[in-house]
Amino acid sequence: MDMIEILKPVLPSMLEVEERLTTDLSTRHEKIAEIILHVSRFKGKRFRPVLLLLSAQSCGKLVPQHLDLAVVVELVHIATLIHDDVIDEATVRRHVPSVNSIWGREISILLGDYIWSRGFTILASMDSQLSTYIMSQTVNIMCEGELIQLQRRYDLNLSEEDYMDIIEKKTASLCATSCRLGAMFAGANRKIQEALTRYGLKVGLAFQIVDDCLDIVGTEDEMGKSLSTDIKKGKLTLPLIKLVGSLPETSRKNTCRWIFQNFTTQDRASVLELFSEYEAVEYSFNKARRYAEEAKEEISILPDSEYKTSLLRLADYVVSRNR
Amino acid sequence: MDMIEILKPVLPSMLEVEERLTTDLSTRHEKIAEIILHVSRFKGKRFRPVLLLLSAQSCGKLVPQHLDLAVVVELVHIATLIHDDVIDEATVRRHVPSVNSIWGREISILLGDYIWSRGFTILASMDSQLSTYIMSQTVNIMCEGELIQLQRRYDLNLSEEDYMDIIEKKTASLCATSCRLGAMFAGANRKIQEALTRYGLKVGLAFQIVDDCLDIVGTEDEMGKSLSTDIKKGKLTLPLIKLVGSLPETSRKNTCRWIFQNFTTQDRASVLELFSEYEAVEYSFNKARRYAEEAKEEISILPDSEYKTSLLRLADYVVSRNR
Repeated sequence: MDMIEILKPVLPSMLEVEERLTTDLSTRHEKIAEIILHVSRFKGKRFRPVLLLLSAQSCGKLVPQHLDLAVVVELVHIATLIHDDVIDEATVRRHVPSVNSIWGREISILLGDYIWSRGFTILASMDSQLSTYIMSQTVNIMCEGELIQLQRRYDLNLSEEDYMDIIEKKTASLCATSCRLGAMFAGANRKIQEALTRYGLKVGLAFQIVDDCLDIVGTEDEMGKSLSTDIKKGKLTLPLIKLVGSLPETSRKNTCRWIFQNFTTQDRASVLELFSEYEAVEYSFNKARRYAEEAKEEISILPDSEYKTSLLRLADYVVSRNR
Repeated sequence: MDMIEILKPVLPSMLEVEERLTTDLSTRHEKIAEIILHVSRFKGKRFRPVLLLLSAQSCGKLVPQHLDLAVVVELVHIATLIHDDVIDEATVRRHVPSVNSIWGREISILLGDYIWSRGFTILASMDSQLSTYIMSQTVNIMCEGELIQLQRRYDLNLSEEDYMDIIEKKTASLCATSCRLGAMFAGANRKIQEALTRYGLKVGLAFQIVDDCLDIVGTEDEMGKSLSTDIKKGKLTLPLIKLVGSLPETSRKNTCRWIFQNFTTQDRASVLELFSEYEAVEYSFNKARRYAEEAKEEISILPDSEYKTSLLRLADYVVSRNR
């Protein structure tokens, strides 16, 4: 299964979103335009706009605001990616060099700010205070999640519950918001809006858990971004939390220190063996699969349509992808 | 003259703004609250809220939205300061250690994002798409200014005109917006709104030129922030542009390299002597003074009041301050 297949029912709108992403970021300033051009070459999965447009069409009609909102959720996402790459010192993003690796972290910080402010200008041009409110709240929650994650680096007491709280905030919230805005502007009733919001939340949780698994067992060629940054930066993601919990308490601290130090060196293979011994990655994938299944159940109230089919497939794709 | 004297007519509102800055940033998360508490100890001049409130009262009545907006302009300003300090690797801000010097640049990047998104949540809660639009546009222009400045570091061809364009974008635009929003929500007519906007723009230009002069000749004790960061980071500010233009063309490049390399070492005194020889700082202060005078002329159409008097004094303060 491929994203191309999934987004087919909303392909014309997605092509418009693609064009808008370039035009909405345009600037008269040559030197900035050069960087923007690079960012628009970031060919991502456009996961959030797809969620928004499929949600809209699965329960109602597409209106012009949906396109604006689809552009906004992707702009906000791109802005956070650029800031995340500075934080993680990542060198590759979406198969091309990251902004920070070419222009340095100073430019990246400002470029992130530049891009989100463009997103909010689009929001303000729409006639809906509510969507501005929802988006600014979402961004705030995303930052909160990232801040908590940073504050708890190398903290071996981070529980699975803490982890779920962090990824709900930093990733799933924007997915949920994308579905919610899609349904809201399509005129769906409250029950359907809430079902799609929960669908987005659960798909987002599944997505992030898989991302965290692939950071350990994926390949950079397939993923198109720097990997192993989590462990290198002391982030405890689900596979590592599972592993830590399985280790005998007496050796826990030393083993973790060894993992943090050796994951990107030639000892990588032995670290991977340890993950494998405790089935820590498999455990995490299973958890992601459960969330994907729950996501699918959430939208059982939707009438059958090609859009609903795509939403169901999207949930499967999220947990079967290798990139 | 002191800021305390100037803000006296809007003191009760400023005290409310002060309280709101703390409550509006509050969070249930202990680890984030600790950083927020530090930021709320940043006792700045609150220059932008003062501009907004004085503008409002000089031409009309204060309404509840003015308080929201005063909080928002300060939050946006604080967010940009935090990001700027990461970019400049500054260690002191408003007399206390900068966020990046205590918690590192990762936290600072996210905290900046966290704070602006809170600001936009406040904007979205107000019933005015227009103010959200104006603010997001302003932030976008501020980023554009900062990006151009960064892109043209060490560029000896940067003209005085280029410099004025940069500082108009990165600093004066938010001052102009503060005055504009103040007047707009006070119900002032278009002519007065525009006059106050131009006043804010010119005061902002004067403010930044003086800031750039003090970065060279000020003392960190008085300024309460890291200084000499401009030249250290290759930023050509007005005094340096004036100096570069005065140097004989044959030695220009070498002299500038010497200045960039030696300004923060023991050769600092000889660099300062060079600035003094060409009266480069004096030239810049004079330019700032002219903008302050023009700012005052802009508001001659306002009726006399204690608020107008404070606006006039504020323009004088901006160019006479040593911090």
